[in-house]
Amino acid sequence: MPENVGQYRAAVMEEPGSLKIRSFPIPEKNKDAALLRVSLCGICGTDKHIYKNESKSHYLGLPTKFPIIPGHEIVGTLENLGDNAKRVMGLDSSENIEEGARVVPIVDLRCENCWACRNFPGWPVCEKGETYGWGISSKDPPHLFGGFSESMYLLPNTKLVRVPDDLPDKIAVYAEVLAVGITSFQRVLHPSQLYGEGTPLVGDVVIQGSGPLALAHIIAAKITGANRIIVVGKPKYRTDYLKQKFRVDHVFDVDETTQEERTKQVMDILGGKGADLVIECTGYPEVVEEGLTYVKPFGTYVIAGIYTDLGRSSTINVQRLISGKYATVVGVPGQTALSYRAALKILSKYRAALPFDEIVTHTFPLDQIEKAMDKALSEESMKVAVGS
Amino acid sequence: MPENVGQYRAAVMEEPGSLKIRSFPIPEKNKDAALLRVSLCGICGTDKHIYKNESKSHYLGLPTKFPIIPGHEIVGTLENLGDNAKRVMGLDSSENIEEGARVVPIVDLRCENCWACRNFPGWPVCEKGETYGWGISSKDPPHLFGGFSESMYLLPNTKLVRVPDDLPDKIAVYAEVLAVGITSFQRVLHPSQLYGEGTPLVGDVVIQGSGPLALAHIIAAKITGANRIIVVGKPKYRTDYLKQKFRVDHVFDVDETTQEERTKQVMDILGGKGADLVIECTGYPEVVEEGLTYVKPFGTYVIAGIYTDLGRSSTINVQRLISGKYATVVGVPGQTALSYRAALKILSKYRAALPFDEIVTHTFPLDQIEKAMDKALSEESMKVAVGS
Amino acid sequence: MPENVGQYRAAVMEEPGSLKIRSFPIPEKNKDAALLRVSLCGICGTDKHIYKNESKSHYLGLPTKFPIIPGHEIVGTLENLGDNAKRVMGLDSSENIEEGARVVPIVDLRCENCWACRNFPGWPVCEKGETYGWGISSKDPPHLFGGFSESMYLLPNTKLVRVPDDLPDKIAVYAEVLAVGITSFQRVLHPSQLYGEGTPLVGDVVIQGSGPLALAHIIAAKITGANRIIVVGKPKYRTDYLKQKFRVDHVFDVDETTQEERTKQVMDILGGKGADLVIECTGYPEVVEEGLTYVKPFGTYVIAGIYTDLGRSSTINVQRLISGKYATVVGVPGQTALSYRAALKILSKYRAALPFDEIVTHTFPLDQIEKAMDKALSEESMKVAVGS
Amino acid sequence: MPENVGQYRAAVMEEPGSLKIRSFPIPEKNKDAALLRVSLCGICGTDKHIYKNESKSHYLGLPTKFPIIPGHEIVGTLENLGDNAKRVMGLDSSENIEEGARVVPIVDLRCENCWACRNFPGWPVCEKGETYGWGISSKDPPHLFGGFSESMYLLPNTKLVRVPDDLPDKIAVYAEVLAVGITSFQRVLHPSQLYGEGTPLVGDVVIQGSGPLALAHIIAAKITGANRIIVVGKPKYRTDYLKQKFRVDHVFDVDETTQEERTKQVMDILGGKGADLVIECTGYPEVVEEGLTYVKPFGTYVIAGIYTDLGRSSTINVQRLISGKYATVVGVPGQTALSYRAALKILSKYRAALPFDEIVTHTFPLDQIEKAMDKALSEESMKVAVGS
Repeated sequence: MPENVGQYRAAVMEEPGSLKIRSFPIPEKNKDAALLRVSLCGICGTDKHIYKNESKSHYLGLPTKFPIIPGHEIVGTLENLGDNAKRVMGLDSSENIEEGARVVPIVDLRCENCWACRNFPGWPVCEKGETYGWGISSKDPPHLFGGFSESMYLLPNTKLVRVPDDLPDKIAVYAEVLAVGITSFQRVLHPSQLYGEGTPLVGDVVIQGSGPLALAHIIAAKITGANRIIVVGKPKYRTDYLKQKFRVDHVFDVDETTQEERTKQVMDILGGKGADLVIECTGYPEVVEEGLTYVKPFGTYVIAGIYTDLGRSSTINVQRLISGKYATVVGVPGQTALSYRAALKILSKYRAALPFDEIVTHTFPLDQIEKAMDKALSEESMKVAVGS
Repeated sequence: MPENVGQYRAAVMEEPGSLKIRSFPIPEKNKDAALLRVSLCGICGTDKHIYKNESKSHYLGLPTKFPIIPGHEIVGTLENLGDNAKRVMGLDSSENIEEGARVVPIVDLRCENCWACRNFPGWPVCEKGETYGWGISSKDPPHLFGGFSESMYLLPNTKLVRVPDDLPDKIAVYAEVLAVGITSFQRVLHPSQLYGEGTPLVGDVVIQGSGPLALAHIIAAKITGANRIIVVGKPKYRTDYLKQKFRVDHVFDVDETTQEERTKQVMDILGGKGADLVIECTGYPEVVEEGLTYVKPFGTYVIAGIYTDLGRSSTINVQRLISGKYATVVGVPGQTALSYRAALKILSKYRAALPFDEIVTHTFPLDQIEKAMDKALSEESMKVAVGS
Repeated sequence: MPENVGQYRAAVMEEPGSLKIRSFPIPEKNKDAALLRVSLCGICGTDKHIYKNESKSHYLGLPTKFPIIPGHEIVGTLENLGDNAKRVMGLDSSENIEEGARVVPIVDLRCENCWACRNFPGWPVCEKGETYGWGISSKDPPHLFGGFSESMYLLPNTKLVRVPDDLPDKIAVYAEVLAVGITSFQRVLHPSQLYGEGTPLVGDVVIQGSGPLALAHIIAAKITGANRIIVVGKPKYRTDYLKQKFRVDHVFDVDETTQEERTKQVMDILGGKGADLVIECTGYPEVVEEGLTYVKPFGTYVIAGIYTDLGRSSTINVQRLISGKYATVVGVPGQTALSYRAALKILSKYRAALPFDEIVTHTFPLDQIEKAMDKALSEESMKVAVGS
Repeated sequence: MPENVGQYRAAVMEEPGSLKIRSFPIPEKNKDAALLRVSLCGICGTDKHIYKNESKSHYLGLPTKFPIIPGHEIVGTLENLGDNAKRVMGLDSSENIEEGARVVPIVDLRCENCWACRNFPGWPVCEKGETYGWGISSKDPPHLFGGFSESMYLLPNTKLVRVPDDLPDKIAVYAEVLAVGITSFQRVLHPSQLYGEGTPLVGDVVIQGSGPLALAHIIAAKITGANRIIVVGKPKYRTDYLKQKFRVDHVFDVDETTQEERTKQVMDILGGKGADLVIECTGYPEVVEEGLTYVKPFGTYVIAGIYTDLGRSSTINVQRLISGKYATVVGVPGQTALSYRAALKILSKYRAALPFDEIVTHTFPLDQIEKAMDKALSEESMKVAVGS
């Protein structure tokens, strides 16, 4: 690399719609921090919303802190690991963190000092809103606070999970997404499931959406004993993919069916009663009303995809869709720190049974970041990743 | 009673807006059934919605089965108790049911045979929709299937709870309403409450509405250790009543404040974070958006008042109001059978501490049913009851 | 069958240790009842305890009602289905019950009238203790109240689940056992699992025991995403079977290791912390202390195998084994009615992935019942079934 | 103060059975730490167990780190509050911590770095075992790590809750104990309570023990709507106290009744079925068997009092006492950090309704620590506190 000795390149978004490669000086070694040589970084729906200027704010109303280096689905190799960092950056003391180790960073930092960190231990809801990729500006040194970069700077309160040796980067990069699916399922498992046959363990699941987050919930449903999995999504590339590669039971393409038609068909499959669990994985508030229609009496609706505020509302007849059937609605758009490790375990354990190697369908080098974004926006892809 | 020897009078609603006193023959004794000499029957918001022709349907989309004898908040004395009925009508074998006993009937019948009865044991969601007052027509003999009647006919699958001897009818008649508050609280108590200080046990509670159902949830909140109780309701008669008689911490009258003003004031009281538990007790979908605003991160919103479908929707920014703060929404508009007994125990146990004698503010004889309805519609009352 | 025209043969246990083939008259058709032509009936640990005269009583202290026709793991074909029975015997209205249908009966009858039926809807804890096999005496007509019989008499309050057409009897007969595993998992799934990585979804599970009930919990653990499954059991036939056929991660044979040795080894595998979930599937109270040793802080211990009272106690240092690590202990030795249907769904759904065809290792004709019992007692078998 | 200018006196336990007043130099000001001028410190059962040489170890097997300054039920005034400490020592950002403020310290420190801190956020189970009073030795400077001292040294990771201005020290000193009761109730509140009438909200509660921890659970039961509260304890001083001052429904003195007699009487009061919730508050494993006897089917037994390991076991017929009635046993001997604040709120809120002023029955100056301990050991007291 003749051009930038002593520098790291990264893709900076100064404002929505623009992604420029810039170079930043290599940060100095710090006993409390580390560098992460990024191997791969996935493009998330949140990155797309920000790029398209659709995002008003994130959890608790927190803003995108432009300029940013986007990207928060990360796998990489530890460099310049400070002595204190080595001691405290492991997710817990059972993690063996060392220089040269491949790791997935937990992207939501917790200050452990604000009201939200203290009251909701373990959850990604720090009031400071320091999330790699959108919540820490690249304006100030050491700048490298996002995954679309050759190397990231890991702040002292970052936690890390080690990647199993035999798990390739191309699978490990999906851990952050899968962790959302795991968190959703852990939050909704509760004894009310004793009513009916419940979920998991042989309940029916409807997934709204057909992208990588939908897939994360499909995987979680499959490995927890879901009875039937029905996908309502688009476009055909993705619904075909989920049907063929992950063998969901039924797919309905919203481009090819009217809402009335597919509602009837989905409900017929479900014996007219609905599903135990319906999960929103689209990011768009317009789908909530249809999703609630599929919920069985005493069933649960999870809002997992609507992570960023598009400034738009849902229209809901709450009597017919919630109270008149004693339903529950839960918002779980993020993931606990512990769920990242669970995600990596699942990606190792079920690798023979499920085609995890095919989740990343397209990879681009960092300097083709805009091409990568176009491919992600096209939705003619499952997960698009940037890196080498 | 010169006019109708051998007959029982009842108030029949042939269609919305009309309530006529009619006479029906006294049903014959039946070994599986019973008669209940009605002492008092409260007027519920559902009765008002039906009367005003606002109600499209009830739980699971079930219709009002006109003509009806409305009224489902009932206390009365058992007459003509059949031998089989005596054996099985007690809520469980610890109830001592006998002729002459004062009882509160559980108004939602369960067929124990439909999909919903089998899958959701104990809950008031039978697919046959046989609820005294709106769900069993008075067209066919023995006609007397509602509480605005001198005497009701109790079908074989009715369950009964005995009223403690020292509890007057005027308090016992409120058991059916209070049971909804108890069921709401039982449904939302779960270990997620470990996050934050939780509810009950020192959490903050906001109640939307200020009628008898709001009061039921205020009572449940008070006896389970709520920290502060804030009421957002109307009209002044009711907000004053709740402030003065049940000593809620704060009341906001929606007629006298703008939504913006009171939201600011309520959130200031709550330290800017919101309440652990917000409970909708108005029956109107328009209030849901405001109610969700008051929910703290990881808090819970209960839809308890929207029992009947008015054919109207709520407009909700689900990111800001649900997913962006990891909130939960639960519909619990009805009550379990067991919660009736709990209600009667509470009405006995806390009678010295809370002014239960003042819940029924107005009583009318049966033949003044329309006057009673007018008083209930005026909302210049807490609970209005019919009977003697 | 020259000997007994118009009669059904069954194996009667007049007292512990004796099983005699007797003949009973074919019951008359009854509009509320049915006959079940038994295809196969498994031998349960409870049958063995009763036979060996070890059983003092069952749930809630209820006695074995000698003489009995044992056997409660049943699959058969409906005969003489009464008109009323056809209407109400289905588990719910979605079951299509008809004469000639293959079904699994739910063996614990509920009177729906006692205190326990009313207070614990859906659970197998009726105070009358009418459980086919041990809880309804064969002394009185129509006698045929157990599964070790050519045909069983189904009382009016029996519920039935239909067997999927393509599922052979040899697999369906295991549904009753698997249902216990499902019920255990449904009962222990709750949000406290958010602490740690929880179970299911990538938690570690230790199973005490290696017979058919252990296998039911292994299956439930596998299909709900358990991380590692460790079995501590005996004899070698069974531990080898579980290792080879169901591929549990580790087995420890209690005949070949000291408790100290294997505790050290198990805890080493578990990183010194213990398992999220430990399940007792042996039936013997002596194992409880060792089992609790394997429980991780905030973990859960399920007592699933100790269904019958042997009159023996466990010795437990509750500080070290329960309170000092904030553990939970739950007794779930039976199964909900709904879990039977879940069991049949699992047996169909995972038939390609798991060797369910090999669960019944030995089958004997009814008149070799004592040979069958000997084989079951030897534990040189997985499930032993009687029938044709 | 002629005696020790520039020194603080404290009561040191070098070994069980001995408590000596010693003087230590006043620690220097430190930006991360603080001093707490102790107003009052209660004597806990754990202090008594250690003094009597009964205690083998505490949670997770952690040892008492002799020499110690015992005492962990503390209220005092902040002195020498470091700048960093001021920023982070508040329980959360809503606490207004400043020099001169009266506070209750959370006595179990969390390192936030060990496996247990990371996996069980918010719980008092740090593997380092740094608990003021028994878990931080007074051997090394700055020595002052227990509450039986003029002043305590607060380590950087200490969290504090501010005492409401109008709440006297004599009540605030009880917050640490009451917090255990609150934590127990928060942990056991879950939807399984829908079965039966549940607890809280009109369930029956049996408390084993009659000291300050029993009282904490009585208070929690009272403010969450328990139906009847039955105490089984001793000696007469305490059972009389609970009956007369806190008006529990029934007391049974174990010195004046045989186990058989009182079991019969307690069960008769409970309708022969048992209590929804039974809570062990004695500290002695010998009572567990009796306590489980009082648990209703599907009820819950909480082990709250057995905090320290006495090296003794309980003998339990798990079939009769746990699995045969589908009961749950939960160990909750400590308290979450958040529950301290809840405790202080309760002590303020219910001060008019419950005689909190009478909880501390005896106060001794620090240099009469041995007299104070004798009074506590006599059990002719409720809470004994040391200080001025």
